[in-house]
Amino acid sequence: MTGDAFNPDCPTRQLLDRIGDKWAVLAMLTLADGPVRFNDLRRRIAGISQKMLSQTLKSLERDGLIVRTAFPTVPVTVEYALTPLAAGLIGLMAQITEWAEMHIGQIAAARARYDGPRDSLAA
Amino acid sequence: MTGDAFNPDCPTRQLLDRIGDKWAVLAMLTLADGPVRFNDLRRRIAGISQKMLSQTLKSLERDGLIVRTAFPTVPVTVEYALTPLAAGLIGLMAQITEWAEMHIGQIAAARARYDGPRDSLAA
Repeated sequence: MTGDAFNPDCPTRQLLDRIGDKWAVLAMLTLADGPVRFNDLRRRIAGISQKMLSQTLKSLERDGLIVRTAFPTVPVTVEYALTPLAAGLIGLMAQITEWAEMHIGQIAAARARYDGPRDSLAA
Repeated sequence: MTGDAFNPDCPTRQLLDRIGDKWAVLAMLTLADGPVRFNDLRRRIAGISQKMLSQTLKSLERDGLIVRTAFPTVPVTVEYALTPLAAGLIGLMAQITEWAEMHIGQIAAARARYDGPRDSLAA
């Protein structure tokens, strides 16, 4: 079965949004080197709320991209890890993120030109 | 200047969301082979509203990823094309989309398992 992102009735289109979500990307990148506990994820993805992190992890778990393991400690320890299905995606996410980090200066300059005074273009 | 997507104060994080938006991805992929007119874009990205397409194109133009050219025909013809800045991104967007299209079956199966009756896991 192969999807078609250009077909509005194909669930691939909605999946594109899911795997393009910044929190999903940051969470998966944080798991790239091995399993990470919930509280460590929250600390490493600075600025994410507990609720948003929970929602993001639940969505990724439902999509089969990460797996949640609970250890019977007191209090219970919960750890997240990438699944084999995620292996082919994580490299692309890393490349997209790296592209954004390398080009944010050019993007910011483009925005300044777009938002700037129009008469400067006529000079 | 290099960004850091893990820094909540860095605009890279917001850029990640922008370039991960499904409409932005589909619009840029539609321009991958050369300039396309607004109405052709709308037809090829089935299911997008005129308003959403306009907003998406304006954001991409502001980010310096596409360029808009108006030809003085009657009525005026408006054409969009990728910029050189977009060249390094379009390949990654194509790969992410292809990954989603190839794996939507596995994702759908994972969702069905997640949503399915829990007692089947105990069998």
